[in-house]
Amino acid sequence: MAKKRILTGDTPTGKLHIGHYVGTLENRVKLQNEYETFILSADTHALSTLSKTPTVIGEHTFQNVLDNLAVGLDPKNVVFWTESGVPELYELAAIMSMYVSHNRALRNPTVKDEIKMKGLGDHFSLGFVNYPIFQAADILGVKAHLVPVGVDQVAHLEQSREIARDLNAITETELFPIPEVLVGRVGKLVGTDGNPKMGKSLGNTIYLGESKEEVQKKVMGMYTDPMRIRATDPGTVEGNPVFIYLDLFGTDSDASAVADFKARYVEGKVGDIEVKQYLAGVMERFLAPIRERREYFEARPDVVRQIMIDGTLRAREENALTLKELRTLLNLSVFVG
Amino acid sequence: MAKKRILTGDTPTGKLHIGHYVGTLENRVKLQNEYETFILSADTHALSTLSKTPTVIGEHTFQNVLDNLAVGLDPKNVVFWTESGVPELYELAAIMSMYVSHNRALRNPTVKDEIKMKGLGDHFSLGFVNYPIFQAADILGVKAHLVPVGVDQVAHLEQSREIARDLNAITETELFPIPEVLVGRVGKLVGTDGNPKMGKSLGNTIYLGESKEEVQKKVMGMYTDPMRIRATDPGTVEGNPVFIYLDLFGTDSDASAVADFKARYVEGKVGDIEVKQYLAGVMERFLAPIRERREYFEARPDVVRQIMIDGTLRAREENALTLKELRTLLNLSVFVG
Repeated sequence: MAKKRILTGDTPTGKLHIGHYVGTLENRVKLQNEYETFILSADTHALSTLSKTPTVIGEHTFQNVLDNLAVGLDPKNVVFWTESGVPELYELAAIMSMYVSHNRALRNPTVKDEIKMKGLGDHFSLGFVNYPIFQAADILGVKAHLVPVGVDQVAHLEQSREIARDLNAITETELFPIPEVLVGRVGKLVGTDGNPKMGKSLGNTIYLGESKEEVQKKVMGMYTDPMRIRATDPGTVEGNPVFIYLDLFGTDSDASAVADFKARYVEGKVGDIEVKQYLAGVMERFLAPIRERREYFEARPDVVRQIMIDGTLRAREENALTLKELRTLLNLSVFVG
Repeated sequence: MAKKRILTGDTPTGKLHIGHYVGTLENRVKLQNEYETFILSADTHALSTLSKTPTVIGEHTFQNVLDNLAVGLDPKNVVFWTESGVPELYELAAIMSMYVSHNRALRNPTVKDEIKMKGLGDHFSLGFVNYPIFQAADILGVKAHLVPVGVDQVAHLEQSREIARDLNAITETELFPIPEVLVGRVGKLVGTDGNPKMGKSLGNTIYLGESKEEVQKKVMGMYTDPMRIRATDPGTVEGNPVFIYLDLFGTDSDASAVADFKARYVEGKVGDIEVKQYLAGVMERFLAPIRERREYFEARPDVVRQIMIDGTLRAREENALTLKELRTLLNLSVFVG
C-alpha cells in the first residue's frame, strides 16, 4: 500500500531557529520514513512581506532547505520544492478561490493575528489575504494526508479542510483527502529574552546554524527570573526560559541533573550562571550535529540546488495531475488537458 | 517590426449578443490584421458566478468561440485561448497580487458595481475580488499593448496599468507595455425592452446566432415611444431603441431611408410597425452572414476545438516566457526556470 503523504514547509523570510525545531521540524524528521514527505518553500508567499526586496527571497529559500537538511531530513526520501516552480499550484488556488467567500477569508484568525502583530493596519496586499488559499493549494495539490505545523497555522489548515470538503462535494468525489493537522509539542517557544514568542524581528532567537561561541553567549545572556537578585534567593522554575530550554533540548541523560538544578533553584542553592553553563552544554550537544550537517551541505551548493530542482519537478508532476483531475471534473478546458 | 498585440476576451457565462458586437467584437474584427490578436475565454473566472454548476462553462466557452468566429475573426490570424489551460497565468497573478493592496482591490468601481448589480451583498468569493488581478495577468502575460473592452471594464484596465507600472518599477525594467484601452463605440446597448442595458438575465437580448424568425419576432415586439398611442401621434426618436438599432446596424445604403423614417416619426406620419419591419430587414442583413459563419463552424466542432487547443498552447508559451522573465528578475526559483 502506498504511503500516506505529508506536506509542510516554510515561508523563506529568514533562517530557521530552535523555535521552528520544536514547533514543526522535529515532527518532520520523526515521520519522514513513515510518510512520503513534501517540504515546501513558500517563496511566492514571502513576497507578501518582502515585495520591496524580492531578490533576497531566493537566498532565504536556499538557507531554509539547508536548515531542513541540517536537522536530519534525508533528501533521498524527502521532496524539497518551491512554490514558484509549480504554476499548476496557482491555477488550483484560483479555482479554489471561487469556492471561498471573501468574508470567510478575512475572518481567518491567523490572518487577523498577523495583521495585528505586524501592525499592518489596513495596508496589506490582496496576496496576503489570498494566503490561506495558496496554502490550501500547497496541501491539496499533492493530496497530503497530514500537515505538521506550528500552532499559529491551525486556522489556515481549517480553511484547507473546508476547501477539500467543498470541492469533494461539488465534484461528488473524494478527490482530496481531508488533511489532518499535527501540531508540534511546543506551540510557541519562549525567546531568550523571556518574550513568549521567539522571532527574528525580536532579536531573541537561537538559529540552527549558529556557532558554538554565539550560542554560549546567547545562553549566558538569557532572561531567567527577574525577582531573583542573588544565587541564594529562592527562584522560580515555572516559565523560566532557561529551564524550559533544559526540558526541551536536554536528553534522557540530562534528566537527573536537570531535576537537581530545579530543586536547588527553588531553594536558592544554585546560581543562574551554573544553570546557564549547564544549558550551554545541552544546547551544544543538541546543535553540534545540526551545525555539522548544515556545513556539509552549505559546502555543496550544487548538490542542494539539484535536490531542489528534482523535488520541484516531482511536486510539479503531482500538482499537474491533481489540476488535470479537477479540471476534468469541472469540465474546464478538457480538450487542453 | 513585430506587430503590437491585442488581448481581449469574454467570460463564458452565456452566448454573445448584438450589445457585445458594438461594445467590443466589431473592434476585434476591425483590428485583427493590424495587431496580433489574442482572444481569451475567462473560463476559470466564470466560476465566480457559476461555481455551483461548473460543468456548463465548457459549453459556454465553445459557444463564445463560435460567436467570435461568426463575426469574422480569422482563426488563421487570431489566437483563441482559455484561461484554464494556462497555469503560468495564475502564477503571474499570484505574484501580482502581492503588489496590489487589498483596499485598492475593493475600491475598484467595477467590482463595486457588480456587487450592487448582482445583489451580492457581502456574499461574494475571494476569487471575485481577485478578478482584476487575473485580468491583469491575462493582459500582461501576453504583453498586450491594446485592450478593446466594454465601458464597464475600464476600471479593471486601470488596475492592470497600475500593476504593469509597479512591476516595471520594482524590476527596474520595461518588462510590461502599459496597456491602452479601446472602448467600443457603444458603451451600453439599450435592450429590446428599453432597459438601458441589454443582458441575458433581463431577457431583452438579440443573440448573434439567433434565427431570422426569432429576430423578426423580437424586433416587432420592441419597446419604442411609450407616449405614442397612434401612428398619427408625433413620436420621439431620441433614445428610442428602434432608431438606436437603425443607426447602429444600418449601413450607408440605409442612411436616407432611416433619415426619412425619423422625420416622418417625429411628425406622426409613420406607424411603429412600418419602422420595425424596416429594422427587421436591417437586422437580417446584419445577422445573416454572422449566422451563416456560425453554422459553418458549429457543424465542425473538431475544427473549432483544434483552434482552441492550438491557441491555448500558443498563449501558454507566451505566458511561460513572461513568467520566466519575471521570476528571473525577482530571483524566484531561478534554478528551476
